[in-house]
Amino acid sequence: MKEELKSLFAEIVGLNNVIDDPALFGPYTDDFTDHYVSKPLAVVRPSTTEQVSKIVKLCAQYNVPIVTQGGNTSLTGAATTYRPDAEIVLSMTKMKNVIDADPLSDTLTVQAGMTLAEVHEAAESVNRFFPLSFAAEGNATIGGCCACNAGGVAVLRYGTTRDLVLGVEVVLPDGRIYNGLRRLRKDNTGYDFKDLFLGSEGTIGIITAVVLKLFPAAKEKETAFCCLNSIQDAGKLLNRFKMKAGSSLTAFELISDLPIERVKKYLSDIEVPPLSDSPWKVLVELSLEKKPQESMMEHILEGAFEDGEITDAAIASSLQDSHTFWHVRESIPLADRTAGGSIHSDVSLPISLIPEFVEETSAMLLSAYPWLGLSIYGHLGDGNLHFNFVSPEDPGATYRNEEGIREILYSQVNKFEGSISAEHGIGMLKLDHNYQFKDPLEIEMMRKIKNAFDPKGIMNPGKLLKTE
Amino acid sequence: MKEELKSLFAEIVGLNNVIDDPALFGPYTDDFTDHYVSKPLAVVRPSTTEQVSKIVKLCAQYNVPIVTQGGNTSLTGAATTYRPDAEIVLSMTKMKNVIDADPLSDTLTVQAGMTLAEVHEAAESVNRFFPLSFAAEGNATIGGCCACNAGGVAVLRYGTTRDLVLGVEVVLPDGRIYNGLRRLRKDNTGYDFKDLFLGSEGTIGIITAVVLKLFPAAKEKETAFCCLNSIQDAGKLLNRFKMKAGSSLTAFELISDLPIERVKKYLSDIEVPPLSDSPWKVLVELSLEKKPQESMMEHILEGAFEDGEITDAAIASSLQDSHTFWHVRESIPLADRTAGGSIHSDVSLPISLIPEFVEETSAMLLSAYPWLGLSIYGHLGDGNLHFNFVSPEDPGATYRNEEGIREILYSQVNKFEGSISAEHGIGMLKLDHNYQFKDPLEIEMMRKIKNAFDPKGIMNPGKLLKTE
Repeated sequence: MKEELKSLFAEIVGLNNVIDDPALFGPYTDDFTDHYVSKPLAVVRPSTTEQVSKIVKLCAQYNVPIVTQGGNTSLTGAATTYRPDAEIVLSMTKMKNVIDADPLSDTLTVQAGMTLAEVHEAAESVNRFFPLSFAAEGNATIGGCCACNAGGVAVLRYGTTRDLVLGVEVVLPDGRIYNGLRRLRKDNTGYDFKDLFLGSEGTIGIITAVVLKLFPAAKEKETAFCCLNSIQDAGKLLNRFKMKAGSSLTAFELISDLPIERVKKYLSDIEVPPLSDSPWKVLVELSLEKKPQESMMEHILEGAFEDGEITDAAIASSLQDSHTFWHVRESIPLADRTAGGSIHSDVSLPISLIPEFVEETSAMLLSAYPWLGLSIYGHLGDGNLHFNFVSPEDPGATYRNEEGIREILYSQVNKFEGSISAEHGIGMLKLDHNYQFKDPLEIEMMRKIKNAFDPKGIMNPGKLLKTE
Repeated sequence: MKEELKSLFAEIVGLNNVIDDPALFGPYTDDFTDHYVSKPLAVVRPSTTEQVSKIVKLCAQYNVPIVTQGGNTSLTGAATTYRPDAEIVLSMTKMKNVIDADPLSDTLTVQAGMTLAEVHEAAESVNRFFPLSFAAEGNATIGGCCACNAGGVAVLRYGTTRDLVLGVEVVLPDGRIYNGLRRLRKDNTGYDFKDLFLGSEGTIGIITAVVLKLFPAAKEKETAFCCLNSIQDAGKLLNRFKMKAGSSLTAFELISDLPIERVKKYLSDIEVPPLSDSPWKVLVELSLEKKPQESMMEHILEGAFEDGEITDAAIASSLQDSHTFWHVRESIPLADRTAGGSIHSDVSLPISLIPEFVEETSAMLLSAYPWLGLSIYGHLGDGNLHFNFVSPEDPGATYRNEEGIREILYSQVNKFEGSISAEHGIGMLKLDHNYQFKDPLEIEMMRKIKNAFDPKGIMNPGKLLKTE
């Protein structure tokens, strides 16, 4: 980096927060794709919104693009550099303060660099609950969750990040600060900028602080693992739970038999509940305000068993049991990676079409690639499947055929009116596919927004939209 | 209207759907403000999205502005003409078809001209429930609800219109059709246009169809009217219900004593439950999946009584009782209008600040206008108050002092970090006040969006943004 620019950054954040020695870039280069590696001009680490504002003004003046980075857990290359040696990485990890905790309003206002796990702790410290949750929550920052509108395991009841954020503070591409940190449930005084910035992957501004919605924590949980003969039955079972349990239904995770077999095979320390063989399993959870006099879970599953929707079920009899069940679900990505040749996807579909989609798409894929291992699981209650692939016999086979595999999968998603990215975002990984399947009019509309806010194109280039 | 333009519109929608005789404008001129009256060039009534598209292309070509109109229930002058004899009213009331009902996906796709009551019926016909609800639902169209992001009585549990819409179809200001009718719970493939169009009051496009979220209907309800000594106790009671009832809490409506006295005085046919005198009342409702073995409402209210948060309560013992209770709440606006000199507002605040806000603001208003009748009620659970005013002795007094009254109220809202429009929107009524209190940077950002989508300014001029 030019010494002049370096000293200007150092004036803002101090010399020890401007890292331009590539030997020290380590913690700021990778993400969870194992594919993209940043080669920044420098890593700059602000502590305050005002510092972010000054950095952005400087970058705008010098035409230096900015990659805003949280916890390095992107699954799409959304927070790594696009052009080597030309962009700075703006690490948000020093911005970790609680700005305001207001349990009576059920709000928590925090800086964007706080990890999701730290947000959970801050909510618990005022006797409240923040529902967003997923495996990487120890590293992922709340700002990163906002930038890609993260999903996770509690969407069925509480929605995605978008639904859990009331307001945002954003440093705009010219360095000015938009203060939308409102603790309001209702505000109809203009265009909805909060939702425009959420999911925009840092391409039109830098989210520096957020107001989060808090909830009272549910006091009781009932968890069960069910065995099913068909994915059609999974759809029926989901409908049964929705009708009988209403808003008490907080998770409904579908898992095909292969990933569970792989957990058993490759992760022998994971305890898998003793369930009978079946092509599909469902992990279902109810959250209740108080312990019912008779188990709601048992009552619903009895009906499902009588109607032939399930063939077997294990109900957690303790919190420990429940953790064991969830641990199986959460270990699937690791089991897939251990099996070898793992490539993942993150698609969503209208829930009613999922059985037909899965059957038709599986058949097409296995017809084209008979050796392919399908690892199908996901949040059926949200219509979100991780339709993943492994090839334990020849780990290179999936990678060599990745384009063909994705072509079949995404064409089918398109045919069934789905989305090629339910919760991970686009980043660099899915940029070409997004242009392939998205209506060109919508790309044009996105371009209008980008040009209106970031005419110089210095905000996270090469992500979500192609650079012009 | 020029005969040429008239015949071009008639080619699109048929001659009987182009009304240019002012004697026939009647059903298309007013709204609920009793203040704004449309003077259109013509009223044009399309039946399909393609017709809307053609009309907009024609208007773009001839530079004729378009006021999109639903059920004429705007409370802010958002759907009446800005300049007389220069704009067309595009009435959506013929666009009433159900496009798709998908109960397994919990979605309902409808044209935008369907009334909210008709949407309720369509949801019920597939054994589901659409929660958005307010007094004008028999006339208000779902498209109008989307355009102003309507709220209502179920926001505490289900959110505003924004939270209940999954996708939109929009005719853009150049006449092209954006098809975002996705039945997906999760879709992270680009900027969030759905939320950009929602709440935009017809200023950047015309919402022609929407995908709505459906829910299983709660099977049991418990409703109670409580008496409280102070608004501080109302805050405590709300917190108690949130902690004890969680997501079963579906309404928490605060009402001061004066509006209830006015219902008794001016609407003698309304049955008011016999409750002891108290400065504040709360109407609270729980929705449950099944009838509990012991009443959750009784249990919670017993604790509240023991802790001195309430002084008296009436619990509905039948559905009829519950309707009686709600009828009192819903009759307040009529009682205020009957009392005379009614002016209304629609503000929101951080819930924790409401007691202090109400006490301080009431004192300031009564100090400036000792004769002023305060009619304070609203959705406390959403932080949304209808802080209204009457002057039964001299109905003209409120109107003569409206600007001063609003100045005090809105300055206080601003001081307490609230919003001057929680659920009604801005329209023409609140345009000046919105410019007065909103950060100029946010107005500038709104202008960027408006210019990017509607550079000719033909979409609902004079609403939400000032015409340039």
